[in-house]
Amino acid sequence: MNISAGVIWKGDKLIDGVPQTLDMLRSRGKRLVFVTNNSTKSRKQYGKKFETLGLNVTEEEIFASSFAAAAYLKSINFPKEKKEDGGKKIELKPGFLMEHDKDVGAVVVGFDRYFNYYKVQYGTLCVRENPGCLFIATNRDAVTHLTDAQEWAGGGSMVGAIAGSSQREPLVVGKPSTFMMDYLANKFGILKSQICMVGDRLDTDILFGQNGGCKTLLVLSGVTTLSMLQDPSNSIQPDFYTNKISDFLSLKAATA
Amino acid sequence: MNISAGVIWKGDKLIDGVPQTLDMLRSRGKRLVFVTNNSTKSRKQYGKKFETLGLNVTEEEIFASSFAAAAYLKSINFPKEKKEDGGKKIELKPGFLMEHDKDVGAVVVGFDRYFNYYKVQYGTLCVRENPGCLFIATNRDAVTHLTDAQEWAGGGSMVGAIAGSSQREPLVVGKPSTFMMDYLANKFGILKSQICMVGDRLDTDILFGQNGGCKTLLVLSGVTTLSMLQDPSNSIQPDFYTNKISDFLSLKAATA
Repeated sequence: MNISAGVIWKGDKLIDGVPQTLDMLRSRGKRLVFVTNNSTKSRKQYGKKFETLGLNVTEEEIFASSFAAAAYLKSINFPKEKKEDGGKKIELKPGFLMEHDKDVGAVVVGFDRYFNYYKVQYGTLCVRENPGCLFIATNRDAVTHLTDAQEWAGGGSMVGAIAGSSQREPLVVGKPSTFMMDYLANKFGILKSQICMVGDRLDTDILFGQNGGCKTLLVLSGVTTLSMLQDPSNSIQPDFYTNKISDFLSLKAATA
Repeated sequence: MNISAGVIWKGDKLIDGVPQTLDMLRSRGKRLVFVTNNSTKSRKQYGKKFETLGLNVTEEEIFASSFAAAAYLKSINFPKEKKEDGGKKIELKPGFLMEHDKDVGAVVVGFDRYFNYYKVQYGTLCVRENPGCLFIATNRDAVTHLTDAQEWAGGGSMVGAIAGSSQREPLVVGKPSTFMMDYLANKFGILKSQICMVGDRLDTDILFGQNGGCKTLLVLSGVTTLSMLQDPSNSIQPDFYTNKISDFLSLKAATA
């Protein structure tokens, strides 16, 4: 079962009944995996966030899109990983040439609110000039949630910048690409139809689950309301929907 | 007749015979217009560049893509022009909201080597939240020539960044959009078939001229070589080609 951020908390507060729900699901032998397109936090940092919220989640249960990028490189036996260096200044004297590492074999682009021309040029040079260099996007999300007061330009900006100058389309490893589904099914030795994707957004979470051949559960505790779900213009129908994730608790009582 | 940069100079040096060629063409009543996708210099700055090179070119003869953007806005009777402010820092305290001017009716994106997350977010907010806000690109060039030592990420990066976060496609007013052709034909009261586009690149200049319904002249003094032109894989054939623009001088002698 996949559970995406937004389903678990709102702002800095846990949604009611979440710890008990996770405990109950685990006690019934369900494996929980938390997926997110956010690539700016490591597993360790996410672990800390869950801990702060009072949730008992191990690092191994967290799949951020940065992890997906690393997992993808591992899956194709990518020989090594090099990082680009940021923050340098560009001097544009006549004849100036930006040197780049010819051994870089993959440019991985994720959300970066410190992106700048130097980084774009460096990534572009690698993608364009290094033979066989991969161009991987952790996600192309238009918006992200840096603060809860408004929507902020997302990873789609950074990816769009390098796509615009390299004229290459990236391989996306985060949602809505189904790479993570394949990876999880393979890792845990299950069928994708045995995975249930739980999310609060129709056009991202639920569509992602459907594209991946998973069962889907929409919770109405986040972005999507019942009227949005039932609106005739909506073409995305989850397999199940409920008000909040902790409704699993009453379901258990009903079937006990 | 349109003449693009690259045809006129190489690096900081004029190509042989250019001043005499321009004088000769003018003396035969030809109107000269210099078009460029570079949006970072004003007409005045370009005028200075031509002056430094010893060329007698007036500001009215220079059409940079920034001018095209302004001309486009004028052509649709755009009520007023506001500029976005750059360089501010973003504080990401909880609840932080970036204010934006709700009266901005057009976001014009060109090459900007100081582009940053603030500018992308500001432009995105205007495009996404201001009703009817236009999204205009001076160009989507993958590469630009900041220095002559290598190719640099071009305006396509900045446009790609805002396209990625706004999920809108821009209206392009520079090459290869034919807006400038229509504008020039209209301004000078001529047919587009009376314009000859002179350029050194097949996939930009010559294609641009052809798309605009103009005659095209390829000069081999720049990027494109004769073997590239004659390669079976090349599908773009100009109406005319010659080694360099000053071949017009011998043409004159021959027909005199």
